[in-house]
Amino acid sequence: MTSIDLNSDLGEGFGPWRMGDDDAMLAIVTSANVACGFHAGDQDIMARTFAHAKEKGVAIGAHVGFPDLWGFGRRAIPFSPAEIERIVAYQLGAAMALAAYCGHKITYAKAHGALANIAESDGAVARAIVRAVRAVDSSLVLLAIALSEQTKAAQEAGLRFANEIYADRAYTKDGRLKPRREKGAVIDDAEAAIQHTLGMLSEGAIICDDGARLKTPIDSICVHGDTPHAVDMARRLREALADANVGLRAFALP
Amino acid sequence: MTSIDLNSDLGEGFGPWRMGDDDAMLAIVTSANVACGFHAGDQDIMARTFAHAKEKGVAIGAHVGFPDLWGFGRRAIPFSPAEIERIVAYQLGAAMALAAYCGHKITYAKAHGALANIAESDGAVARAIVRAVRAVDSSLVLLAIALSEQTKAAQEAGLRFANEIYADRAYTKDGRLKPRREKGAVIDDAEAAIQHTLGMLSEGAIICDDGARLKTPIDSICVHGDTPHAVDMARRLREALADANVGLRAFALP
Amino acid sequence: MTSIDLNSDLGEGFGPWRMGDDDAMLAIVTSANVACGFHAGDQDIMARTFAHAKEKGVAIGAHVGFPDLWGFGRRAIPFSPAEIERIVAYQLGAAMALAAYCGHKITYAKAHGALANIAESDGAVARAIVRAVRAVDSSLVLLAIALSEQTKAAQEAGLRFANEIYADRAYTKDGRLKPRREKGAVIDDAEAAIQHTLGMLSEGAIICDDGARLKTPIDSICVHGDTPHAVDMARRLREALADANVGLRAFALP
Amino acid sequence: MTSIDLNSDLGEGFGPWRMGDDDAMLAIVTSANVACGFHAGDQDIMARTFAHAKEKGVAIGAHVGFPDLWGFGRRAIPFSPAEIERIVAYQLGAAMALAAYCGHKITYAKAHGALANIAESDGAVARAIVRAVRAVDSSLVLLAIALSEQTKAAQEAGLRFANEIYADRAYTKDGRLKPRREKGAVIDDAEAAIQHTLGMLSEGAIICDDGARLKTPIDSICVHGDTPHAVDMARRLREALADANVGLRAFALP
Repeated sequence: MTSIDLNSDLGEGFGPWRMGDDDAMLAIVTSANVACGFHAGDQDIMARTFAHAKEKGVAIGAHVGFPDLWGFGRRAIPFSPAEIERIVAYQLGAAMALAAYCGHKITYAKAHGALANIAESDGAVARAIVRAVRAVDSSLVLLAIALSEQTKAAQEAGLRFANEIYADRAYTKDGRLKPRREKGAVIDDAEAAIQHTLGMLSEGAIICDDGARLKTPIDSICVHGDTPHAVDMARRLREALADANVGLRAFALP
Repeated sequence: MTSIDLNSDLGEGFGPWRMGDDDAMLAIVTSANVACGFHAGDQDIMARTFAHAKEKGVAIGAHVGFPDLWGFGRRAIPFSPAEIERIVAYQLGAAMALAAYCGHKITYAKAHGALANIAESDGAVARAIVRAVRAVDSSLVLLAIALSEQTKAAQEAGLRFANEIYADRAYTKDGRLKPRREKGAVIDDAEAAIQHTLGMLSEGAIICDDGARLKTPIDSICVHGDTPHAVDMARRLREALADANVGLRAFALP
Repeated sequence: MTSIDLNSDLGEGFGPWRMGDDDAMLAIVTSANVACGFHAGDQDIMARTFAHAKEKGVAIGAHVGFPDLWGFGRRAIPFSPAEIERIVAYQLGAAMALAAYCGHKITYAKAHGALANIAESDGAVARAIVRAVRAVDSSLVLLAIALSEQTKAAQEAGLRFANEIYADRAYTKDGRLKPRREKGAVIDDAEAAIQHTLGMLSEGAIICDDGARLKTPIDSICVHGDTPHAVDMARRLREALADANVGLRAFALP
Repeated sequence: MTSIDLNSDLGEGFGPWRMGDDDAMLAIVTSANVACGFHAGDQDIMARTFAHAKEKGVAIGAHVGFPDLWGFGRRAIPFSPAEIERIVAYQLGAAMALAAYCGHKITYAKAHGALANIAESDGAVARAIVRAVRAVDSSLVLLAIALSEQTKAAQEAGLRFANEIYADRAYTKDGRLKPRREKGAVIDDAEAAIQHTLGMLSEGAIICDDGARLKTPIDSICVHGDTPHAVDMARRLREALADANVGLRAFALP
């Protein structure tokens, strides 16, 4: 029996505000990407999320983003690679320390929002992320979009990485995530998303929207939890994986 | 020949703004307390300061403060001890990661501004700081005002600490730093400040403003660098220590 | 038939985050207290809220709070009266300009959270708020807790004001809002809250928790909308007022 | 005798930080562009600057920028025209209210940093600025780079505007400000800058770096004050204008 990781973005509130149903998602996923205070999250929410993840046996990663709380890290702010290195290192350290404070351990890093989008195809930015992660703790794993510049940069630098696919996102013919502003970028129908995901897993390939198959190892599936619908889709995907005899296991445990 | 540490608050700019003459101070002190982004500092300034400190052989500590950039961490915001633990842990981790990124190493922590003032006499806050530092890295040293609740809390918890005196500040009859708003709180005359400091070192005691002596080990002297006058005073103090055959050595080297 | 105003705190999201059901509340209340970006709200949310309020014929006020997004303006940060004047003036102007941009008009101001709590009993802070409002636009009305230092300060300064009571809050024997941390501070039962409110209206008095009646004009009732339960209570109060033949009318229309 | 306005960016500190010598510049210029809290400035600094400007008889304008304190408003963050309208309106109102609080009056608006750079050549952004200013107060003047999309947009919308040139900046052959990253963008030599400025005034034209003359009305000269050298250049320019029998007068007085 093969196994796979399910990851999701958690701890995305700020101060009095909440986003998504973290408790529900922590019962579904095996890895939690936790916001580090730059695009969302604060030290209290981080600590609470790390503590809950520990209780549930869920692995935790630093979800590092642009310093843009107002824009939720989704604005493509023009930072240089050197600035990005320091943006990543700072958040990574903050998350590692708070995880230690909670008796848990950060085992991986993942880029969020505009940073992840840019790093999917911009090699200089991808290498900046890899350099920062390695400099802070070379035993960390980088969770990155399969077939992206990030996985390539990690491989070249000798940094461990995990290849991720998205359960509810369509791919362009080049194997890139279809931009959210384009029609059909998000697969809203749960059943369609689940079949799309199972198909990619069984074929060991990204299935592009023109039908092409791009071979890639797949280590993790990203699911969302920001709406009741999304939580439900994540739960059904988990069940479908069990039915398909695919085990669930975090790619990086402490 | 005995030896002592000289510490100063550095990296206190933010974005386009600068405060004090960091380069001058790095040639004078043996330990740099570097702001961590909550009351001052940002990831770029932190990295630059860590890199310069490394070049000069200066030890670096995380100068942790309240999340209050506008008030420079000097407003007495009512945070609970648990909130303070996480405020400290977050900044400490960020600093440790950026130091690693720069090839240097955080060896100590120090509380800034209102946090330090409250922790001087509030045991619950002092213990919160100590708990956070220990949880993140129990090998760190806590640099704290001599005879304060912080040194007491560190001792009780088995956390290493360094006792610090202030070169240019008067002490109340209880051995507390005289509040800045009170007359005579700051010793503006360089010669007077130097004699006051040398007196405390040679007597191994805080000299209170009523003339009382309160015995204490002294491991470090805090000097300021935010004005040309302050830099000059720090330089003269360094020379006076050399003249008095007191060596300079960081209390916590990597 | 007498008439009364119903006011509620709206526009309390920030960036990607939302709080409460603004659309539901705009169909219930006659006045909307809109956050101005310091404790919640941003220019986009403000503009959207002003535009919706205009469509519904709802009066708008600037809900001014402490600069503390993370703490939602609920932390008692020690600002001086002069600092508070400028905090209030800045937000008031921002709201007035965005209202003009939306074709609506700010007709009143109300203090939020810790600022309101402090100003209920601290005359110096109350007078600072009044001075700021008058200086910016002396035709504005100050919406303030009945029998508070704010109403007193407004009266003395010749600034128009509206006396407000809270539908779901208990009052101490001195006629102050019972602090939230105390038992029984919030009246959770909708029916009890409605009867309490109707009682105060019919008696023209604050009903304290020891049964005392403190006479006061009542111009507005504050209702909350941050939970489905709160929205339901507001709706039922509106119906109960109609049943009691009390009309609804904003105390300050453009 | 003809007359001209001298404008400069003032109030560009934040919290404990200062930038430039505002007092020196207020004795030189006739118009002060005051930062409004988004890229620099805060309500206390704004109030202080407005009060000093009033004492010196200097006109005040709202210097509106991107919400990017860390980047000082110089990052080209991709905001939509509608977002820019609200960014401008918010800051404008805040400045107008604080000016009223200080007994002074905002008579004009000017875009700062990346917002100004983009609006120099992007018509949609220029029109967004004009729409916001008109919606908030149609009697305001827009201070904008001569021959830019901003002056064009203001003219088309019937908003009063003032054409500004830069004392120490070179112009491309198209009459645009030469980007700061290019060689020769800033004219460091005071005498050269002054002759360049006097030349443009006497010819009534932008003098491009290929020698071309682009005719334009000139209402104001922008001078900098962020270094002692810059203050000195501003002072010498003021003297040179007096020698050339050019009077100094704000283009928009209360």
